Amino acid sequence: MYIAMNQFRVNPERASDFEKMWEERDSYLNEVPGFKSFHLLKGALEEDVQVYISHSIWQNEETFTDWTQSEAFQKAHARGGSPSGTLLGPPKFSGWQVVLEK
Amino acid sequence: MYIAMNQFRVNPERASDFEKMWEERDSYLNEVPGFKSFHLLKGALEEDVQVYISHSIWQNEETFTDWTQSEAFQKAHARGGSPSGTLLGPPKFSGWQVVLEK
Repeated sequence: MYIAMNQFRVNPERASDFEKMWEERDSYLNEVPGFKSFHLLKGALEEDVQVYISHSIWQNEETFTDWTQSEAFQKAHARGGSPSGTLLGPPKFSGWQVVLEK
Repeated sequence: MYIAMNQFRVNPERASDFEKMWEERDSYLNEVPGFKSFHLLKGALEEDVQVYISHSIWQNEETFTDWTQSEAFQKAHARGGSPSGTLLGPPKFSGWQVVLEK
């Protein structure tokens, strides 16, 4: 199993706009081979920054990589990213191999 | 839903010792109310640091907090933490509310 996380630093005053963008976005993920689940995570409020993580679970790294190069990915990202002024910096990606499950 | 993550900076030469400690540890988590799943995640190798995350999913933040104050938690941590020399710094905790699921 593989977990892809993208961390976003969001203007706290725009947090609801950021969440709304994710709610309304049609991700087409359920038609993607190897996709297991998607969650948007909200962290503790730090000074002047609300951190979020887009957190998706995949069968393995290969299925995630295949998705990023697919037509479904193009469609999901065709309408642009976060609304102007919501992000306080570029998103930070990290990918994780599951080495143990309990 | 709530996700608790603890990030560990591990000496790459001790990565197998670190993973073995988690494999052998009896976490008693399956007897804990609200516990859903545990995964140990291995990140990309950075220069001289192998990052891991202990990643557990809970019904909500309250069940996680209750666990940290429980006898099961005491038992799981009674044998001490990571083997000497494996960690390159203190673990860094972060807690996450699930605000959207797809």
